[in-house]
Amino acid sequence: MKNVKYLKCIKCGKEYEALPDATTCECGGILDVVYDYDYIKKNFSPADIEASDNYTMWRYRPFLPVEEETVQPPLRVGWSPLYEEPRMAEKLGIRKFWLKDDGLNPTASLKDRASSMGVAKAIEAGYDTIACSSTGNAASSLAGNAAAAGLKTYIFVPERAPIGKVAQLLIFGATVISVKGNYEETFELSKDAINEYGWYNRNAAINCYLMEGKKTVALEIAEQLGWKIPDYVALSVGDGCTIAGVWKGFKDLYEAGFTDKLPKLISVQSVNTCPINRAVRTGEPWEPMEENTLADSISVGVPRNADKAINAIIESGGIPVEVTDDEILEAMRVTGRECGVFGEPAGVTGMAGLSKLCREGKIPADATVVAIVTGNGLKDTANGIKAAGEPIKLEPDIDKFRKVYEELNK
Amino acid sequence: MKNVKYLKCIKCGKEYEALPDATTCECGGILDVVYDYDYIKKNFSPADIEASDNYTMWRYRPFLPVEEETVQPPLRVGWSPLYEEPRMAEKLGIRKFWLKDDGLNPTASLKDRASSMGVAKAIEAGYDTIACSSTGNAASSLAGNAAAAGLKTYIFVPERAPIGKVAQLLIFGATVISVKGNYEETFELSKDAINEYGWYNRNAAINCYLMEGKKTVALEIAEQLGWKIPDYVALSVGDGCTIAGVWKGFKDLYEAGFTDKLPKLISVQSVNTCPINRAVRTGEPWEPMEENTLADSISVGVPRNADKAINAIIESGGIPVEVTDDEILEAMRVTGRECGVFGEPAGVTGMAGLSKLCREGKIPADATVVAIVTGNGLKDTANGIKAAGEPIKLEPDIDKFRKVYEELNK
Repeated sequence: MKNVKYLKCIKCGKEYEALPDATTCECGGILDVVYDYDYIKKNFSPADIEASDNYTMWRYRPFLPVEEETVQPPLRVGWSPLYEEPRMAEKLGIRKFWLKDDGLNPTASLKDRASSMGVAKAIEAGYDTIACSSTGNAASSLAGNAAAAGLKTYIFVPERAPIGKVAQLLIFGATVISVKGNYEETFELSKDAINEYGWYNRNAAINCYLMEGKKTVALEIAEQLGWKIPDYVALSVGDGCTIAGVWKGFKDLYEAGFTDKLPKLISVQSVNTCPINRAVRTGEPWEPMEENTLADSISVGVPRNADKAINAIIESGGIPVEVTDDEILEAMRVTGRECGVFGEPAGVTGMAGLSKLCREGKIPADATVVAIVTGNGLKDTANGIKAAGEPIKLEPDIDKFRKVYEELNK
Repeated sequence: MKNVKYLKCIKCGKEYEALPDATTCECGGILDVVYDYDYIKKNFSPADIEASDNYTMWRYRPFLPVEEETVQPPLRVGWSPLYEEPRMAEKLGIRKFWLKDDGLNPTASLKDRASSMGVAKAIEAGYDTIACSSTGNAASSLAGNAAAAGLKTYIFVPERAPIGKVAQLLIFGATVISVKGNYEETFELSKDAINEYGWYNRNAAINCYLMEGKKTVALEIAEQLGWKIPDYVALSVGDGCTIAGVWKGFKDLYEAGFTDKLPKLISVQSVNTCPINRAVRTGEPWEPMEENTLADSISVGVPRNADKAINAIIESGGIPVEVTDDEILEAMRVTGRECGVFGEPAGVTGMAGLSKLCREGKIPADATVVAIVTGNGLKDTANGIKAAGEPIKLEPDIDKFRKVYEELNK
């Protein structure tokens, strides 16, 4: 990989060769992919990217840690739409607003970007089986992307995993092990099995390449805005991998001279479960919190990538903000109603946080802002129903309808 | 519209000016948009289309019945992926196989193509409100596409409509009228209200422009295959609008000289509910049937567009085929496992029919075939669970896992 120098531990600074199946540092720290920006700058320009007719996340190969001959996995991941929303901008009281709908990825979440990268690296490294322990979007995106590429998957889930999410994994042909125990025991069993059978490891805080997939959402936002970086980018934060990836993407472009500005990150968590934001605000090391929000994808009390996320928020001069479950449900309605986009609860949490900041007057009126919808609302129809309200019940009688209509339109 | 001559009744042949809010013929027959293929041929070529950087269904404007100044609605509809599936081709015993995943549209079904067109025509005609009676993909796609465009929607649903589907409509801000009556009474109330309030009518068998949106799936298949038409295109059939649209698309390209071949259509219905296929097979006029399949989107006993559909299947030299619910569930598994695509039951019914024909030796070994997935499996997780099977339940114990692994891999 001519564009990659090495992997570097974000804790102790130790450097490692960028092997495709690298895991964590011997000190336990997470590795980070270090690029040769001089090489990228010398060999690639924004115009080269724009000329690509590959409308997937793989159009950004100059910024991706893969070999030249590495094959792009089959599912069409990335290049999700970035909708300009003038009506919403007016409501929020800001100059420009765009919504990035990453729920339109093949398995309906931003995590497809990480899994597409994971599958590519697994094949590059010569593996035919890939494993993780999760029930959420990471697992379903892995199962789908691996199936399309002809790889086997082993996915370990705690027995309390909802049947709907397990069904998606089984449909994609994953071997799903439902572990009679809690999440910790599930994770430990998966670790033992991965070690024993030598499968490729797709766990976001262990495999440093996954974040490099996630960062493509930032590269896309930049290109879709003509390489003009918005003032703010708002998104939900759970484990911390996604916001760290987003920051990496914007920094990559900046370092390579593709852009001349960095955005401030708006990090949105639940009021009940916000270990990362709390650490940013207090300046203290992060500490575990209880998991208590209906936005299951960000209900993470012990974030696996807290350090990278905290660095990203602080370095960007970003804003941590917390929202209630009611504010999340309201964001589901607003995003649906105004933009025609149905996001899962964690998917619209970035939007919820932005709305709150705008209400509190914390975002300047001339600001330009992007909010990322990280997952599709069809993934969680139970909360969709909670957010939706009730239809108008009526006899099949036009006179009665007339009265309803007058009531609605007076 | 320079590319459109007029609208023509498919029953009595009467011609009408192509007004944007045209409905049915005075004889009750459905209208069809008649194009000026000489004009299209003279002014546009496949290369013009390929040069477009508009990666939505609106790249096909030369073949769409809209004014030059008509604004494209905001949601990114169309240009869904067409995946080549060599492993599946081998399993099926055919030369080439592609899967078109139309579940990746903004509201997760092919119907977005019709609704995007409906919204464009409503705005063209100066309406600010659009209405339909449905609970299915037509309604949710209308609600989503209209919301994004800032149009109001009134949607009439029978009270038995599942709450999950109603929730999606409410999230998109539709005014949903839950009618205390059956589907017929619901439809009648919607008709009365549409007449009284003068809303734009988005009912597929009344508004002839909607099919012109749906046909873009065929235009895309052609372009994505380099204008080389496959031998067969397989899809599920309910009301008949979609298969009629697909046929119109392929014929458009053929008439305009963009392609030199037409595909045979494989029309797949449920064994229990197959009025269109029965009519094709017997040569008799179609007759109502009971509605009895888990594939709700094609559980249509009284198809609204039967005539256009029957014409399309016969004209193409196509094959009607019926499948059981079990075969549909099996197709959900196979499409997930082999292609990484999760389709709703009606979404994979085309695939189920193709598998059956291949098993029965009715598709030649050198054939090239496309199957269209018309809707996303996340729309119907209940049947996803039915199809999925069970995970392996296990204590958190690597010794026990070892035994399971050996069992699985012997």
